Amino acid sequence: MKKLLFLTLCSLLCTAPTSAQQGEPEYVTPTSIVAASSADEWVAIDPDDLLVMQLAPDGAGNPRTVVIQLIPAPFSQPWVANIRTLARAEWWDGTSVNRVQDNYVTQWGDVTEEKPLPEGVTAPEASYAVGARDSCNFSSERGHRVFADCPIGQFILPDVAVVGGHVGFEKGWPLARAEHSLWPIHCYGYVGVGRGYAPDTGTGAELYTVIGQPQRHMDRNLAVIGRVIEGMQHLSSLPRGSGELGFYTEEEAHLRVPIISIRLGSELADAPSSEYLSTDSESFAQYVHVRANRNDSFYRSPAGGVDICNVEVPVRRVGE
Amino acid sequence: MKKLLFLTLCSLLCTAPTSAQQGEPEYVTPTSIVAASSADEWVAIDPDDLLVMQLAPDGAGNPRTVVIQLIPAPFSQPWVANIRTLARAEWWDGTSVNRVQDNYVTQWGDVTEEKPLPEGVTAPEASYAVGARDSCNFSSERGHRVFADCPIGQFILPDVAVVGGHVGFEKGWPLARAEHSLWPIHCYGYVGVGRGYAPDTGTGAELYTVIGQPQRHMDRNLAVIGRVIEGMQHLSSLPRGSGELGFYTEEEAHLRVPIISIRLGSELADAPSSEYLSTDSESFAQYVHVRANRNDSFYRSPAGGVDICNVEVPVRRVGE
Repeated sequence: MKKLLFLTLCSLLCTAPTSAQQGEPEYVTPTSIVAASSADEWVAIDPDDLLVMQLAPDGAGNPRTVVIQLIPAPFSQPWVANIRTLARAEWWDGTSVNRVQDNYVTQWGDVTEEKPLPEGVTAPEASYAVGARDSCNFSSERGHRVFADCPIGQFILPDVAVVGGHVGFEKGWPLARAEHSLWPIHCYGYVGVGRGYAPDTGTGAELYTVIGQPQRHMDRNLAVIGRVIEGMQHLSSLPRGSGELGFYTEEEAHLRVPIISIRLGSELADAPSSEYLSTDSESFAQYVHVRANRNDSFYRSPAGGVDICNVEVPVRRVGE
Repeated sequence: MKKLLFLTLCSLLCTAPTSAQQGEPEYVTPTSIVAASSADEWVAIDPDDLLVMQLAPDGAGNPRTVVIQLIPAPFSQPWVANIRTLARAEWWDGTSVNRVQDNYVTQWGDVTEEKPLPEGVTAPEASYAVGARDSCNFSSERGHRVFADCPIGQFILPDVAVVGGHVGFEKGWPLARAEHSLWPIHCYGYVGVGRGYAPDTGTGAELYTVIGQPQRHMDRNLAVIGRVIEGMQHLSSLPRGSGELGFYTEEEAHLRVPIISIRLGSELADAPSSEYLSTDSESFAQYVHVRANRNDSFYRSPAGGVDICNVEVPVRRVGE
């Protein structure tokens, strides 16, 4: 079975060290760097920043739990406050996954759009970008090099979807910056707020996650409020809807996966205890470098650069 | 149902025109450009360049057909020749989908790895890149502008995974170029050749497709031989494998979807008749521009740039 498989990066939570084959040198891979990181390079995630979604069990009776990490202030504060209110009100219980569009998004919420919202939950008058604390004199001459000494975390990467700006990591999140403003971006597994036509900004009751190619044209047009850190396969492997925009039609109503509950981690006795690799850490710097420069027993032509969405921030359960 | 959904691009095959709401201006969208294109801007796909894969029906008895367009010479000629031989030998019939790794790939072939290959089907000594016919004096000053007059199709876009080079479209395919060589790239739905450790290059019997974030570090490390143009959802929505690298374990053997047959379009009486929007056409130029600059009733903050993998080449059935 091993001969013809093609090797790959471990998934998000994988921390198993790379084992060298007999007589082969030890290669440095993203996985080996994460495995070699020290405990003090990891940052615990506050249980109040976790949303735990219980979907109905699958056809074989297996539970389906999705864990979402909420983005910190200042990026989506009005929406995340709404989301905490909705979770505490148990508002999502009994709602469903209503839309699955291939290479685009899975979306969930109240299919009737008539369920009353808890008091105070309204679409905010808010901007999708916030003012940068500082500007960074990024020079295009620096090209694809990863370098330190910049106020947006320790990395500044070029990016084709940010004109006159660049991208980097801060407090564990991929961010874009241009013209003195900062904003979160739509990578695979990132969660945003559905809305109607502008100027509607959405309340946070209707949520989606990207299940294919990063949809960077959504950046600064829809609110990013978090990312799936566990159970993404329960949202990405659902049958695609055949209705407009991938919504399930009435004939496909049986495909809408019921949401049993969505709770804040802080409300649960058995909340997952998770941590992320600090994006300011030395191990993360190495991790980004190797992501951009794979050179091991399998990959022989390093790209020399990497899309920010292909640098998944390592997240794991504490103790794993 | 319409109020809270968030609008999106149509899927690959969608050609429905955008209808303006009462009193609203007509907005230009990627979909409206494709709908307004003229018939002579489309290029028919040779049935010998199509692979038609019949998977076993799904649990509800629905057929599952996947259509793959093979890449033209010179990009993967040794592998595509092998693949045509394998299809004509009906070699894949009775094999299966064996690996589904979330945000990575779905892979299919002979799970036993013991099925004899047809005569002449061997891993070629081949390069993953080919010599460029010409160099293009791309200047970084041109930044994110799309411009004409360059030997690699009419577009040259910046790209973070190509150091000292750029990307563009030629004969309907996204390509990268640097240092006088050209190579195809790993976007969502693109199909490549599984292999063992280098210097193995793979035969083409073991194939995979990208089901998440484009995996551009695979470029020039594995052979891209085509792309899924119909039925991608049948490969992207499968249950993820829990074994190493997303392979189904023996306990999950029932999840391996049987492959009933893989045939060349030229072998089939009822082969799909498909066409793609010429990447040299004026409509495609507009399409790329609007992909990079969404500005309509929903998107109010145009990005100004776009990742090449987010510019899906429009493909449709002839007559649709």
